[in-house]
Amino acid sequence: MNDTPSAGTLAVAMVGHAFMGAAHSQAWRTAPRFFDLPLDPTMSVLCGRDAGRAAAAASRLGWAESATDWRSVITRDDVDLVDICTPGDSHAEIAVAALDAGKHVLCEKPLANTVAEAEQMAEAAERARAAGVRAMVGFTYRRVPAIAFARQLVAEGRIGEVRHVRAQYLQDWIADPEAPHSWRLDKERAGSGALGDIGAHIVDLTQFITQDRITEVSGQLVTFVKERPVAAEHSGLSGTAGRAGETAPVTVDDAAVFLAKFTGGAVGVFEATRFATGRKNAIRIEINGSAGSLAFDFEDMNVLHLYDATEPDETAGFKRILVTESTHPYVAAWWPPGHGLGYEHGFTHQVVDLVTAIAEGTDPAPTFADGLQVQRVLAAVETSSDTRLWQEIPA
Amino acid sequence: MNDTPSAGTLAVAMVGHAFMGAAHSQAWRTAPRFFDLPLDPTMSVLCGRDAGRAAAAASRLGWAESATDWRSVITRDDVDLVDICTPGDSHAEIAVAALDAGKHVLCEKPLANTVAEAEQMAEAAERARAAGVRAMVGFTYRRVPAIAFARQLVAEGRIGEVRHVRAQYLQDWIADPEAPHSWRLDKERAGSGALGDIGAHIVDLTQFITQDRITEVSGQLVTFVKERPVAAEHSGLSGTAGRAGETAPVTVDDAAVFLAKFTGGAVGVFEATRFATGRKNAIRIEINGSAGSLAFDFEDMNVLHLYDATEPDETAGFKRILVTESTHPYVAAWWPPGHGLGYEHGFTHQVVDLVTAIAEGTDPAPTFADGLQVQRVLAAVETSSDTRLWQEIPA
Amino acid sequence: MNDTPSAGTLAVAMVGHAFMGAAHSQAWRTAPRFFDLPLDPTMSVLCGRDAGRAAAAASRLGWAESATDWRSVITRDDVDLVDICTPGDSHAEIAVAALDAGKHVLCEKPLANTVAEAEQMAEAAERARAAGVRAMVGFTYRRVPAIAFARQLVAEGRIGEVRHVRAQYLQDWIADPEAPHSWRLDKERAGSGALGDIGAHIVDLTQFITQDRITEVSGQLVTFVKERPVAAEHSGLSGTAGRAGETAPVTVDDAAVFLAKFTGGAVGVFEATRFATGRKNAIRIEINGSAGSLAFDFEDMNVLHLYDATEPDETAGFKRILVTESTHPYVAAWWPPGHGLGYEHGFTHQVVDLVTAIAEGTDPAPTFADGLQVQRVLAAVETSSDTRLWQEIPA
Amino acid sequence: MNDTPSAGTLAVAMVGHAFMGAAHSQAWRTAPRFFDLPLDPTMSVLCGRDAGRAAAAASRLGWAESATDWRSVITRDDVDLVDICTPGDSHAEIAVAALDAGKHVLCEKPLANTVAEAEQMAEAAERARAAGVRAMVGFTYRRVPAIAFARQLVAEGRIGEVRHVRAQYLQDWIADPEAPHSWRLDKERAGSGALGDIGAHIVDLTQFITQDRITEVSGQLVTFVKERPVAAEHSGLSGTAGRAGETAPVTVDDAAVFLAKFTGGAVGVFEATRFATGRKNAIRIEINGSAGSLAFDFEDMNVLHLYDATEPDETAGFKRILVTESTHPYVAAWWPPGHGLGYEHGFTHQVVDLVTAIAEGTDPAPTFADGLQVQRVLAAVETSSDTRLWQEIPA
Repeated sequence: MNDTPSAGTLAVAMVGHAFMGAAHSQAWRTAPRFFDLPLDPTMSVLCGRDAGRAAAAASRLGWAESATDWRSVITRDDVDLVDICTPGDSHAEIAVAALDAGKHVLCEKPLANTVAEAEQMAEAAERARAAGVRAMVGFTYRRVPAIAFARQLVAEGRIGEVRHVRAQYLQDWIADPEAPHSWRLDKERAGSGALGDIGAHIVDLTQFITQDRITEVSGQLVTFVKERPVAAEHSGLSGTAGRAGETAPVTVDDAAVFLAKFTGGAVGVFEATRFATGRKNAIRIEINGSAGSLAFDFEDMNVLHLYDATEPDETAGFKRILVTESTHPYVAAWWPPGHGLGYEHGFTHQVVDLVTAIAEGTDPAPTFADGLQVQRVLAAVETSSDTRLWQEIPA
Repeated sequence: MNDTPSAGTLAVAMVGHAFMGAAHSQAWRTAPRFFDLPLDPTMSVLCGRDAGRAAAAASRLGWAESATDWRSVITRDDVDLVDICTPGDSHAEIAVAALDAGKHVLCEKPLANTVAEAEQMAEAAERARAAGVRAMVGFTYRRVPAIAFARQLVAEGRIGEVRHVRAQYLQDWIADPEAPHSWRLDKERAGSGALGDIGAHIVDLTQFITQDRITEVSGQLVTFVKERPVAAEHSGLSGTAGRAGETAPVTVDDAAVFLAKFTGGAVGVFEATRFATGRKNAIRIEINGSAGSLAFDFEDMNVLHLYDATEPDETAGFKRILVTESTHPYVAAWWPPGHGLGYEHGFTHQVVDLVTAIAEGTDPAPTFADGLQVQRVLAAVETSSDTRLWQEIPA
Repeated sequence: MNDTPSAGTLAVAMVGHAFMGAAHSQAWRTAPRFFDLPLDPTMSVLCGRDAGRAAAAASRLGWAESATDWRSVITRDDVDLVDICTPGDSHAEIAVAALDAGKHVLCEKPLANTVAEAEQMAEAAERARAAGVRAMVGFTYRRVPAIAFARQLVAEGRIGEVRHVRAQYLQDWIADPEAPHSWRLDKERAGSGALGDIGAHIVDLTQFITQDRITEVSGQLVTFVKERPVAAEHSGLSGTAGRAGETAPVTVDDAAVFLAKFTGGAVGVFEATRFATGRKNAIRIEINGSAGSLAFDFEDMNVLHLYDATEPDETAGFKRILVTESTHPYVAAWWPPGHGLGYEHGFTHQVVDLVTAIAEGTDPAPTFADGLQVQRVLAAVETSSDTRLWQEIPA
Repeated sequence: MNDTPSAGTLAVAMVGHAFMGAAHSQAWRTAPRFFDLPLDPTMSVLCGRDAGRAAAAASRLGWAESATDWRSVITRDDVDLVDICTPGDSHAEIAVAALDAGKHVLCEKPLANTVAEAEQMAEAAERARAAGVRAMVGFTYRRVPAIAFARQLVAEGRIGEVRHVRAQYLQDWIADPEAPHSWRLDKERAGSGALGDIGAHIVDLTQFITQDRITEVSGQLVTFVKERPVAAEHSGLSGTAGRAGETAPVTVDDAAVFLAKFTGGAVGVFEATRFATGRKNAIRIEINGSAGSLAFDFEDMNVLHLYDATEPDETAGFKRILVTESTHPYVAAWWPPGHGLGYEHGFTHQVVDLVTAIAEGTDPAPTFADGLQVQRVLAAVETSSDTRLWQEIPA
């Protein structure tokens, strides 16, 4: 069991130090500077496979020390929380071990590469929970103020009964057939392609905003470019079964599209792709309810559009709300109205919510059970794409 | 057989004089004023069921005379073309009779309420074609300059190989459960709901722009509000089986969503609804290709957004093109750059294209065969919704 | 004196048949088809300098006959109204003669090329008024529904006390130094450049929307390109003092910028230019009041943005109102919500308002006195540019 | 003279710890984590008037110690750089003393409250410069990537010769007449109102982007609300000559508007206001050149709009460039494309540029001379408002 640290500190070990490691580090460094946290997080140790690179990263990112063996790190007495920023194929092993060792866990999304692994993780989290140990999955986009505010408006009934959910996560980084192969295009390592990498986010976000669950899906996975050149720098590191100058097969989806039904009767349309030329990180969500609508696009992340259908026709219209007022979620800690936040602020808010939950002894959301449910939706999309039939999501 | 009129005139009879009749009349009146037409259309006779209302409409809309019996009108020697603006359940009968009588036909969309009717019409058009008689279905949105320009850009290869088609037709006029029943909500009269009324447009438009065909679909129809109050003024006229103060069942779809595959390998996501609160007539189409992307929204109809993926990253971005230059389709006939067109201009362009095709002895597009193919896509969506399986579109 | 025609008709003679003539003709043809007019306008005679071209234009634009001598036309017994669509240097002569002959007059803007001429015209209008003869100046942009609605909102107090007026009329058609010379760049013919041609519109529109008057200005006129090539086709027609291959001096302003004070205490910033590369016909108006704000851009003419400062901060935002509801000015006559109007609809609405005023015996706005006041503002801007001092506008 | 620290560190003392102090602290903390700095800044001491509040701020913001007497702090041997975040009326005294003591200085904008003070500061900076001591004024908006990229495009000739500059800085925080009085509304403390507080930014930004200078202005200052209630909590602290329940006079401008001429022949229109209801921090800049245009709005800060007038009309349009590519200024250090930055990133970039300049022995821009020139433009606007005449800016 993990006692809440007597001295009011929370010692963090982070595993992995690539893109997500940089974002999480910025969050651990920044959260205490802008928010009054009930516990003081200390950036104790960063863990990476290569000793030299881990040490350099620890220094640059602000961690007190570095290590290479995550197994020994997670059992250290002076570690209270394990922050997992590795690729998805190692999440289950690390998270289960950390939870069983009595450490709180923050695990990057997707929770795992398979439903089976995600189930093990959810079970481990449930076991740990009885001992006061907390587990959270890192769907950080929930913490963009405009998204958190959207959920609040739905909860307040501002758009009435939800009827349509329209969600797209559009990128274009491999739209060029000559873009090189990488581990993200290899099913062994990545689990899936656009579906798990970015489709997972819009499944989570739409369920989060509507507080509703997807019950059935009909989907289609597509791989537009089936072979890609192996880049020199990647031929070893990426584990790709090929050498520079050769090509390697793409074994994951380039894009995933699916229809969905929600418990509350809404119908959803989802699309995740790495081939939407010109869209860089366009998370676009529109929700139409009986009393109004909401629209969001991450490429303009400080804005939420709200339509109030109860207004007279004459003056009704989508309002462009700058979600930068002190009354908006998370915003009071930052800047005056109109001074927008950026991508990494969601990670800082995640730290705030996690630390607060740990201190208060409550479950931080999204839980591993929430992450498992997202995984089940993704698995159903894949099955549906194979069987050409709608698939139900197990409750 | 219909000889091209010696005097260079084209005598038109229009059947129906509601919303579409007003739009078509404005087009017949206006086309010769802005375009050099190879034939001079004369607005000869307007046909409606009620003599008094037909006469009043003829006077207001600019038709030389009025009539009540379409059967006698379409056989008149002094009629060259029949313009059908009635509800879908009468299209087949009128169109087939007119074509068989040797009259050119312009028929409002959807071509018919059923595939069987549409097949009869396409066959009649094919028979008539041999005799130089032309048939065209009124998918007017093709003639919005930005849409016609989008097709041109795709044809020129400006966006490369098409990978994603994303199309929505969003309205909200019955989002309120208290909105009254009408014939459009009655399957007998209307054939289908959002699917045929507005979904038909985005099926046609996306195939038109991409010059590609939908081969398979998986869809879902939804009826959110299953009973609606019968309005006093409609209880007789609308044929609704109910009286004011009672409710009548809604027997068509409120919304239709579907996935689609295109012959060229693209994957499509479609949505047509009358429940998207705040969206009034939002025909939104985005197409992502290997070399670029296009985006359009009818609520800003004079604009086309174009992304060129071959530009350097640094300066690449979606261009907001005002489609009001004299080099854009149809625009040279109108106003200087920046002076936008409106909804009814598409109808005027339709008259221009139809009259030109008749004079030149070529087939005006979209043909009845095109209309039939759209109908088959819609039917496949319905079947798919029932069977929960993907459906192929017969070639 | 002009008796309201006993037969309920209003015979119109139009002088000039270029760009404005085409727009006015479309309006005269269309207004009775969509609106219930209290008088029935007849398009009697079109007058142009060249007999052949006038006859061709009359035929194409729908006028019963053509003529070449405006002096004889305006005294014909069978003419009730003279519609003046010629360049500004002939407005005064034609309008005064027509009014003195007892004909109603619709005169294109700007009212005249000089304040002195505008004064004569306003005096003639005042004399004629006593005899029931009406005069109106054609600031048609007032009749764009979003603009008329903006005025209504201000009048209802929806934005409180007006504090800021921000208005731009941006075009780019001569941004290229090689664009050829034309009569519009010749002070003799055009009076002024961007200032009178397009600046006049934003002076009128902002005063119309706010119901307030400009009292003082400080301005600057600029001519960026001082010589332009004489185009072959223009060397005679345009009266340019040069031949093809030569250049001719630009004697008007390319751009005009000015500050303004309004009677109500608001401060204004105005800009009119033909050198704003990429802006085609961008009439952009933003008005900030103590209780809210309005924003409009003609390049998206069916939209008005409204901010309500009395809302809670949390949900306050600029609303994008589609001004296409039947409750919006002029819209009920046209199409369903979301089916936008275009540039020429403002001219149709102008006909409606003018014919209604004539039938009702009231003054159609804007009157010649209104046109004169705009002229005085423009003249003050010019004087200010010369003197480098603020200038007051005579009341 | 200040030797570049042998150990490669740069010890920073910050004076002031309100809004700007928080932003600067985040920058000092963050810059070394994302950028390779040639010197390692250490956050040595934070200085504030109240010992308790300064100590608390130091702890929260990450400074090693706190102090209350800036005079003793700036002469400490272990301080290399003084970062001035106090109100404008103390800038001159602190900055001159620090420079004379051989410390590098970063001074928040506006450089000073008067031209006389700014001149003293520029002279001190010039003296210090000879000794290798650097001085920089904090116009951080220059370091928003989209702004820095705009300047680069102008420098590359992408928009040709600049003809129009259109700049607005719009806020609304005192649009309500009941908003309480504060020191920012008191000429003694603040120097000026909207003009110096926010107008200064758009003067700097437009000169920065165009690399051109303002030579003449004609302006108007306005105070819409001349008395405001004294808030209980401010009656002492703010120095306002009144007590809670009373009102105090507003002695600065609520809004400033002015026309400007640039050395290169461009004409500018500027507007700074705290009364633009609905605009929260809208820094809007549009620049029209002979070959293209640029447009920016800080409320959508990761976007730059670019129009290329050399493209064919058919496909020309304003491009919405997401300035989040690794090739854009400052961006490579942060996140992948489409993952936007926020307000405070400009401060981090400022630290990067300042530290780099110090290490390289070059002058960081904007220099105090640049800040003085901005001050002179503002002073000329004020004079012009009084004299009603255009004013030249001394070179």
